[in-house]
Amino acid sequence: MKNLKGRAVFAQSGGPTTVINASIAGGLIEALGQDSVTGVLCALNGIKGVLTENFVDIEKEELDELYALKNTPASAFGSVRYKLKDFEKDDADYRRILEVFKKYDVRFFFYNGGNDSMDTCDKISRFMEKEGYPVNVIGIPKTIDNDLVGTDHCPGYGSAAKYIATTLAEARLDAVIYESPLVIILEIMGRNAGWLTASASLSQVTGYGADLIYLPEVPFSMDKFCSDVKAVVEKNRICVIAVSEGIKYADGKYVGEDASQTDVFGHSSLGGVCGILKNTVKSMGFKCKAIELNILQRCAAHCASKTDIEESFESGRQAVIHAVNGETDKMIAFKRISNNPYKIECVGLDLSKIANAEKTVPLEWITPDGAHLNENFTKYALPLIQGEPERRMENGLPSFAKLKMVKFKID
Amino acid sequence: MKNLKGRAVFAQSGGPTTVINASIAGGLIEALGQDSVTGVLCALNGIKGVLTENFVDIEKEELDELYALKNTPASAFGSVRYKLKDFEKDDADYRRILEVFKKYDVRFFFYNGGNDSMDTCDKISRFMEKEGYPVNVIGIPKTIDNDLVGTDHCPGYGSAAKYIATTLAEARLDAVIYESPLVIILEIMGRNAGWLTASASLSQVTGYGADLIYLPEVPFSMDKFCSDVKAVVEKNRICVIAVSEGIKYADGKYVGEDASQTDVFGHSSLGGVCGILKNTVKSMGFKCKAIELNILQRCAAHCASKTDIEESFESGRQAVIHAVNGETDKMIAFKRISNNPYKIECVGLDLSKIANAEKTVPLEWITPDGAHLNENFTKYALPLIQGEPERRMENGLPSFAKLKMVKFKID
Repeated sequence: MKNLKGRAVFAQSGGPTTVINASIAGGLIEALGQDSVTGVLCALNGIKGVLTENFVDIEKEELDELYALKNTPASAFGSVRYKLKDFEKDDADYRRILEVFKKYDVRFFFYNGGNDSMDTCDKISRFMEKEGYPVNVIGIPKTIDNDLVGTDHCPGYGSAAKYIATTLAEARLDAVIYESPLVIILEIMGRNAGWLTASASLSQVTGYGADLIYLPEVPFSMDKFCSDVKAVVEKNRICVIAVSEGIKYADGKYVGEDASQTDVFGHSSLGGVCGILKNTVKSMGFKCKAIELNILQRCAAHCASKTDIEESFESGRQAVIHAVNGETDKMIAFKRISNNPYKIECVGLDLSKIANAEKTVPLEWITPDGAHLNENFTKYALPLIQGEPERRMENGLPSFAKLKMVKFKID
Repeated sequence: MKNLKGRAVFAQSGGPTTVINASIAGGLIEALGQDSVTGVLCALNGIKGVLTENFVDIEKEELDELYALKNTPASAFGSVRYKLKDFEKDDADYRRILEVFKKYDVRFFFYNGGNDSMDTCDKISRFMEKEGYPVNVIGIPKTIDNDLVGTDHCPGYGSAAKYIATTLAEARLDAVIYESPLVIILEIMGRNAGWLTASASLSQVTGYGADLIYLPEVPFSMDKFCSDVKAVVEKNRICVIAVSEGIKYADGKYVGEDASQTDVFGHSSLGGVCGILKNTVKSMGFKCKAIELNILQRCAAHCASKTDIEESFESGRQAVIHAVNGETDKMIAFKRISNNPYKIECVGLDLSKIANAEKTVPLEWITPDGAHLNENFTKYALPLIQGEPERRMENGLPSFAKLKMVKFKID
């Protein structure tokens, strides 16, 4: 327990989500109100902004615009694809971070990101501890992939899941209008964990779910896929399929990386998996539309989950509260207290328990045919997509946060 | 002027839109309240439902569910890809339609669709006139393509435009987070008219527009495309491009149908244009993401324009009012009375003036560099995307209209 006083630095890393800005907004606004926080800075482009002293001064921002971050997708303070080495092997970056922390009197450090970012957080925290520099380091999680261990779910997942389930329901309605057979394939993100793809099952509660769902957790068979599709089309005429970009054959090879399917330039087919499955479906004689949801699923703030936004905001707030109360080397995790009514609480979880592990969809939540989710998944995921946020609009379009981004530097 | 009394039949045709159900809802609800309408039927799957007497009885539906059609995308009563022949050459279908109209005492017929549907409407109206069978026939327009002549704009366009502008703004935010160059390409529908693609410029009013826009109206040059992209990336690091599926080279050949770009199966690349442009951009050494908006742009009811929904509903209502007042062989068109404040009125336009013509984006609304829209387009299109509709939700997902679809048949 180290009760410290000094500046707080926040940074964002990893792929963006619809609500990563809601998380950092919660943290920034909470930090601005804490007596022991003497200044609030954001490092631009993740840890790189710390290394290069590229800071913006949050005290110069309007409070309304910080709140507007709740409905602004992507990482307002940039991101970075830079991985710190182990400090036992090469501590140059860590010594530089320590130097900057000392220079700016940084006593609170918050890193907002996914798996790799939690690893970065853990390493920085342990290095500072070793060097005897008091700083409380807390990870604020985000990932649409929902694959962080130790937390009930991840900020960002609920909004992506809501977008996927909504889009699938709408596409299903679009598909049924003609009397001829039609197969629609939605390709969804997730290399190893099928959480996002599984969310395509949620719209079944309103009657518009996916007919077939293929997750990376279940070995993929093209023969079974063909017979699955044929059976659905023969029964229902249309077949709506949700497929993860990360489905693999039994030998572990990604379906989307099948070398025989590359185009004339040697590139993999655009759309990877959905392009390959579309060709397969067309060779069966059925009309097929293949849609790769691509980045739309991680930036569609116009279809975000209010639950996800509010929880993300709260996780940022709690990170500050935990740090000010003397905790370090923790990630803010969600613990589900009850499901009916749905209720969670934020807890601080040891970063060492989270970094470099990956949570996948439990096999017992997948039906024996490997192509559907059962009620356990629905019970788990449905609460996460509840509620429509109030959005600030301008000329019929979303009005995102307008930040001044005033640079802060100590010479 | 024929003031008639009898049954009204509605049908939907062509590709679905976000608001075609709003149009038919306006018509159905208005017809239910008209004394001279003795019964309200919907033919399933367009004109085919008339030919096969496949009707549903709208008087059996709950009024709330008819109103819920305002936020239900796609064609609730199905569609059809069937084109009537000219009756001078083959009048078999027309004789059958006349037989059905007589049997069901149909005195009002409403066809809700695009260009081809207006042509169908016109032919039926003229045939009935020739045969001396009194029936008032009115077309209710829809098309996201916005390419019908004689009307200021088409129901369905505003919602698709709002979805495109919103999605582009969100994707733009997603693109800027890293410090490395990135090109994002959104492929948008429209084979000959660039209205939808042009809507990608609208988010510039909030600061998040497209950097480059390529419409079918302007001959496409791959060399110019490359130099355009290079200039934007060198200046701004990221480049967001909106491209119509229908862009053509100066010789009239579709860019998306370039035979050298087919895959190993001989299929055109998935995503057509955006796949080809993505490969070009990658060969320039830039990272590129290509996203085909596909059917999402025509079914995203969760991002519809309230203005579009209300106008569509009104166009259906006005169709009934015009028919009951004795008009026939007309399409309901929008006439813009003023732009500030935005105000339109519904007028009846001769069907013969609409069928088989196509309205494209005026060349004087496109900037001299051929890759942007000027303020004339913004002034025209911005009013059409205003307002967020109230949507009925269930479990965090859209709750679409629940229709009983009770069949109606006279034996």
